[in-house]
Order: sequence, then structure tokens, then C-alpha cells
Amino acid sequence: MTIGLIGGTGPEGLGLAMRFALSGQEIYVGSRDLQRAEAAADVIRTAVQGKCSDVPILGVENHDAVLQADIVVVVVPYAGHASILTSLRDVIADKILIDAVVPLRFDGACPSIITVAEGSAAQQAQTLLPEARVVGAFHNFSAQKLQDISNPALGDVLVTGDSVDAKDTVINLIGNIGDLRGIDAGPLSLSKFVEDITAVLLSINYRYRSNTSVCVVGLDDSKYQRKD
Amino acid sequence: MTIGLIGGTGPEGLGLAMRFALSGQEIYVGSRDLQRAEAAADVIRTAVQGKCSDVPILGVENHDAVLQADIVVVVVPYAGHASILTSLRDVIADKILIDAVVPLRFDGACPSIITVAEGSAAQQAQTLLPEARVVGAFHNFSAQKLQDISNPALGDVLVTGDSVDAKDTVINLIGNIGDLRGIDAGPLSLSKFVEDITAVLLSINYRYRSNTSVCVVGLDDSKYQRKD
Repeated sequence: MTIGLIGGTGPEGLGLAMRFALSGQEIYVGSRDLQRAEAAADVIRTAVQGKCSDVPILGVENHDAVLQADIVVVVVPYAGHASILTSLRDVIADKILIDAVVPLRFDGACPSIITVAEGSAAQQAQTLLPEARVVGAFHNFSAQKLQDISNPALGDVLVTGDSVDAKDTVINLIGNIGDLRGIDAGPLSLSKFVEDITAVLLSINYRYRSNTSVCVVGLDDSKYQRKD
Repeated sequence: MTIGLIGGTGPEGLGLAMRFALSGQEIYVGSRDLQRAEAAADVIRTAVQGKCSDVPILGVENHDAVLQADIVVVVVPYAGHASILTSLRDVIADKILIDAVVPLRFDGACPSIITVAEGSAAQQAQTLLPEARVVGAFHNFSAQKLQDISNPALGDVLVTGDSVDAKDTVINLIGNIGDLRGIDAGPLSLSKFVEDITAVLLSINYRYRSNTSVCVVGLDDSKYQRKD
């Protein structure tokens, strides 16, 4: 598969791109700035070199990242979410769009969530792009842990979406990243609750000086188990 | 410690009371109906018999459960949350109140969350009981798994509260339940996000026919680890 990342030059985008590259996907890192995109592609190529088959990893403008992509991933800060998706609507068309954006804000040190009229960032994307098959995923992952590719990516990926086919495709894609499991968490209307978990994790990270994720226990084939 | 449960006769209350009894706490199961309270206490006593030291487990009216308690736990359905706490305000006074209530609703099969003017059930409790030291905890636990005391309680307990002392006391109390860990998730303003996780878990349970909980990975002393 070809993955095109909108705003893929930030820390979360770099981390996701590395994990996707390691799982054998072709990567187009998009940015508004071609030079930044090319620099980010260099960082990703260097990180994964010798650790996976030689997949193409290219830095391009956002429009071209979407154009090339089988699956589009948006990882921009929330402040730019609506405007960048609107500007790319025609090229996104009916593609699968993985939305990993969290509408975070901070009240001093305490993380909180910006009210989104549509309910959540993922629902905002679906409203702006009615043809696209929007899937919420990867909200609760530390960029630092994602980029630490000598260690397994930690946590389960809670996946929401209204297109069952698109959700299944994304869950399979996540399964190809050896360390991760995608869990079907329901329709896009539940994405808000998944996005909001990020605020809880940041609060925990602040208190415990850590980089946490969540996982789901109690499934027959959970990736996690209690220590003895 | 003496634990008094308000509305302790429901499945979640029974499960929590069993786990607290097994960890050596004295239990007052409260109900509006004394006979139901006594019947619930019988169920709990029978379940834990021979599995722990002989702690008193008594069924009483809600008012008496609170009166006897070092720590009060409220586990009523959300519909009765505000009215029952208001009616018990004088006897709760400045005690620690663990609020485990989730303002759940269902849109058909899809779980969702009732809007609470105060922000969350736990914040509603704090507003109604300004003297009490409200701590949000145990929102994301399956009653069935809690009652299955031949197996470890599954998951981490995300704990919120504005009184640091009260939160520490509750985290220690949780630590006495051998299988569980309480994690300081921040101030009471974050309780909403913890309460809302329950809707995600119920959605996952519906899809995977399971009884799930969440745990936090990435802490130095996480209770959970990846399977090899």
C-alpha cells in the first residue's frame, strides 16, 4: 500500500511514517513546504535503513502525498485541521482518510479538549469530506515512542469509523505493523471518547514523567497480559 | 478501613464489595431497601467465604452505610446519582467519596454519554457535596469480571480528584486489592474523559463479545506487559 501523510513532518507524522515503512508500505510524506517534506523523508529513510525492505520514502507537497496515496493519514495540529482538509477535498475524494488529530488544549499544565462543533476531529473531517471514508486511529500514541523504532510500538490502536470496509482495511494495515493491534471501537461518533483519552494520558505522563499508551485487556487475543 | 457503598446491591456494587472484602476491608452494603441490602451482603459473604480473613460484611440502609464508612463509594445508576447524593449530604459531610458512576445512555446498540451540566458525574458529586473529598475511580470495570473473584480483576484504575490526600488514600486502597493498580490521572476535571472510556469499552464488548477493561502501558512499573 502507499501511505500519504498530510502534515507528516511533525513528530507524530515521523513516528507513524517510520512504523508504516518498517511494515513494508510505500511512504509519501506531505508538507506545505517541499523542502521540509524532503528533509522529513531523509530522517525517516535514515531511521529505517537496513531494518526493512527497501521501500520508497519520498517527501512531497501535501497535494501530491494525497494524490499518490492508497490511504491518506492526517496528523496536523488541530488548529490547521479543517483548513488543510478543505483545501485537499477534491484530491482526497473517496479515499480512506485516517484521522489521528486530537483537539487538545492546555489549561496551564492540565490538558483538556477543545469543543468541536461536529463532535470530534474525525467527525469534522467526515463533515468536510462527505465522500471520504474517514477512520479515526492512532490518537493515543506518543510520538517519541513511535519514533523509538528499536522498541515495539506500545499500546493498542482504537479504531472508529462508519465505513466497515475502510475500518477493516485500516485494522489490517495496523496488524502489519508487527507490534500493534487495531481494535474496532465502533462508529465515528465514538471517536471523541478515543481522542479525549489523549488528555488523560498526557496528564498521567506529566505526573509519572513517562510516555504512556492504553491497551485493552479482556479480549481473547489481547496483545497484553498481566505480569506474574 | 470501613467501606460504605451507596446503592451497593447492583452488579457493580457487588463486584467492588467482593474485591474490597478480599483485600481485608470491612463492608457496609447500602440500599434504600434494608432487605435488599441484607440479601446483597449474604451474596458477598458467600462469595468470599474462606478466601479472606473474616471481615464484617453487613447490609444496611444507605444512610447507615455512609455513617459507618471511612470511605464512601457511590455506584448507583446515573439517573439516581444527584438525588441520592443530595439526600445524604449531611452524613457524607467531608468524607472521601469514590464516585464510580458513568452517565451512560444508548442510541440503539451504540453506547454514548449523557451531557452533565457540571462536566461529569464526579464533578456533579463535588458540586452537590462541596465539603466531601470526591475521587473518581472504577468507571471502566466490568461488573461480571469484578464478581469473578477466582480470577484477578483485569485493568488499571484511573483515579481523578482535586484533593491530593484523598486521591492518595484511594490509590493505596486500590493497591491493597492485589490485582489492581490505581493510577493518578489528574484533577476531577479529567473525570469526564475517564467516564467516557466506558462507552468505548462497551462498544468493543459488543463487537468482540467480551468484557474488556483498559490498562496503561509505558509506566516503569506497569502491571501489564506485551506477550512474547
